[in-house]
Amino acid sequence: MIRINGGVCAAKGFKASGIHCGIRKNKEKKDLSLIFSELSASASAVYTTNLVKGAPLTVTKSHLQNGKAQAIICNSGNANTCNANGIEIAEKTCELLAKELNIPQDDVIVASTGVIGQKLDITPIAKNIPSLVKSLSKDGGDDASEGIMTTDTVKKEIAFEFEISGKTCRIGGIAKGSGMIHPDMATMLVFITTDVSISPEMLSKALKTDVSSTFNMVSVDGDTSTNDMVTVMANGMAGNDKIVEENEDFAIFMKALNSVTVYLCRAIASDGEGATKLLECTVSGAKTLADAKKIAKSVVCSSLLKAAMFGADANWGRILCAIGYSKADVDVSKIGVFLKSRAGKIEVCRDGSGVDFSEDEAKKILSENEIDIEINCGDGEYSSVAWGCDLTYDYVKINGDYRT
Amino acid sequence: MIRINGGVCAAKGFKASGIHCGIRKNKEKKDLSLIFSELSASASAVYTTNLVKGAPLTVTKSHLQNGKAQAIICNSGNANTCNANGIEIAEKTCELLAKELNIPQDDVIVASTGVIGQKLDITPIAKNIPSLVKSLSKDGGDDASEGIMTTDTVKKEIAFEFEISGKTCRIGGIAKGSGMIHPDMATMLVFITTDVSISPEMLSKALKTDVSSTFNMVSVDGDTSTNDMVTVMANGMAGNDKIVEENEDFAIFMKALNSVTVYLCRAIASDGEGATKLLECTVSGAKTLADAKKIAKSVVCSSLLKAAMFGADANWGRILCAIGYSKADVDVSKIGVFLKSRAGKIEVCRDGSGVDFSEDEAKKILSENEIDIEINCGDGEYSSVAWGCDLTYDYVKINGDYRT
Repeated sequence: MIRINGGVCAAKGFKASGIHCGIRKNKEKKDLSLIFSELSASASAVYTTNLVKGAPLTVTKSHLQNGKAQAIICNSGNANTCNANGIEIAEKTCELLAKELNIPQDDVIVASTGVIGQKLDITPIAKNIPSLVKSLSKDGGDDASEGIMTTDTVKKEIAFEFEISGKTCRIGGIAKGSGMIHPDMATMLVFITTDVSISPEMLSKALKTDVSSTFNMVSVDGDTSTNDMVTVMANGMAGNDKIVEENEDFAIFMKALNSVTVYLCRAIASDGEGATKLLECTVSGAKTLADAKKIAKSVVCSSLLKAAMFGADANWGRILCAIGYSKADVDVSKIGVFLKSRAGKIEVCRDGSGVDFSEDEAKKILSENEIDIEINCGDGEYSSVAWGCDLTYDYVKINGDYRT
Repeated sequence: MIRINGGVCAAKGFKASGIHCGIRKNKEKKDLSLIFSELSASASAVYTTNLVKGAPLTVTKSHLQNGKAQAIICNSGNANTCNANGIEIAEKTCELLAKELNIPQDDVIVASTGVIGQKLDITPIAKNIPSLVKSLSKDGGDDASEGIMTTDTVKKEIAFEFEISGKTCRIGGIAKGSGMIHPDMATMLVFITTDVSISPEMLSKALKTDVSSTFNMVSVDGDTSTNDMVTVMANGMAGNDKIVEENEDFAIFMKALNSVTVYLCRAIASDGEGATKLLECTVSGAKTLADAKKIAKSVVCSSLLKAAMFGADANWGRILCAIGYSKADVDVSKIGVFLKSRAGKIEVCRDGSGVDFSEDEAKKILSENEIDIEINCGDGEYSSVAWGCDLTYDYVKINGDYRT
């Protein structure tokens, strides 16, 4: 598997575009994106479990009942959530786009991200759908990834090339996500495209399996968004034998999908609002997979640990504290903890108690921008990884005045 | 019921003291506190549910098996948690104090607060127990409340006088708590004293009932401490008919206890690390008490909302978002939200959707230092209150470099 350029346009038959339509006041900022597949594609999605759901999610869910889609439209600057006429606006968006692309309305996936509870005017969207469609190109992945950004500071895109049954296949994805990141069965906005031939059922199975160990293991701030959605479209244009069961080809596809999702998880966490450091917590030796996950996620979610990482302070007691309240079944007296980065690796805790270490060395290790927290529970065979970021002044600044 | 001075020394027969013994480097900062009852008292405690528990909690739990205690000793600056010889140190502390006070060793409650995972040297404690005991006085409540402070910026003490069966009774308490506040069945360090005559069983019942709607509804940062403990000692010196069942006297005592705990909850939340504002979230119209509690706590725990409150930004969508992921059984389309403070009250959400409001008025209301968030679920008869604080630059500052 090799990494290639092109993001969501890397796979055969996919084009994209991103423009400024006027939802945002800042004309420099793109706020409307489109991804289009020449052929109708198998499609699947997972959504936020937040009871308060963005209207676009309801519409997309209904459109994906047949496991097919051909286009994705997404605006930023307004979440279209807690709006009395939200569904109507989301449906109208699909209707207008479908007409312009000459595809069935229920082959459109619609998504929104931005402020919750502000009315969304259809006018700028309606007026600009023709130019959005006209701008579609094989080089448009970059623009599309820009159009879905909110407080993101960098675009998040990735693509890989691999082989299934002798055919060259490609998969690519884009993501937005910076704050309100604490997915539960879903995540922030992620759009993945591939030219692999796979049935909607197997595509859905692949996505759901993958998400549980990738996007559901990311946290920036403990807030589960109302608009989380990961979608994948597979248009079959690679020409491989269609994947319809859990065979070797499916395993290859799962691996390719996982390469995309892990990359995007790390990209989302390291671009967490205000973040200066990516935290990767690896738990091993847990009694069950569920225990390993609970511990890893609890650690990357601890505000206290996150603030300590910002300050490059090896306050490992906060790691033990977060393990202790994680509700995982764990024997504290067997826990070992290492801190690691490009600058080195130190042991800070053995058998649940502190070990002497050099504060200077610890400071050096924690001053890097990618920190690994390695926890061994010494009590089983299960492991898990979670991703998060540090808690900084800028998180407070960004969120103290987000709307204005 | 009237508010009086004296804190933990307000009730008959209680004395206290607080000194600098040398656990902390800063000699200006008291780090060892003692509360003593002339007579052996009924005693009860609730503890953190964190699996990683401070050694003092284990020792205290065993000492309170008989429902009796006569003294409380507490150090700050070191949590005596994740220390290989922690239990030994905690036991030794009790032994030395018991000898000095000439009381049974298992009538001592021991507590610690501070950094987790640093070895605790018994020497400064052992050396200073005699002077700690010598300093005991009826005016020592203030010193004792100072000796348990960590990142707290203000002392937290309160006392009330009330009557049971014609006898004047008193109850008082002190608390420490500023960060790592997200109690689960317990809370930060809280020591309550009363001269009411009550059996250990009824005292325990009163405490457990009260805590579920008071200390368990406070959150500063979502981190459940390893050393949380609330204790209450009742020495019976008020001379009321001993409370041994759920009668009218018990109800009066519950009310007095609740006055102390609610005061301390609000004091802990408004002195949350870095906090500039106390948030009080009142949920009404919920289907069940559990739903009301889930919603209230989810809202005061949202990092995004906490940051918005710091910025006096009426971003009410984040309130709806937090309700949505609270796991409460709620009908989003019936939810109404008001924001309130000394400066006024505005409606921001009705039937789950936004209503127009004046941003200027909202700014004025949210610029106060006590903000009420009123949520009506419109779907039942249950209500609940939770307390929290805003998320500020100073929280990050304090926790980015706590140990050094």
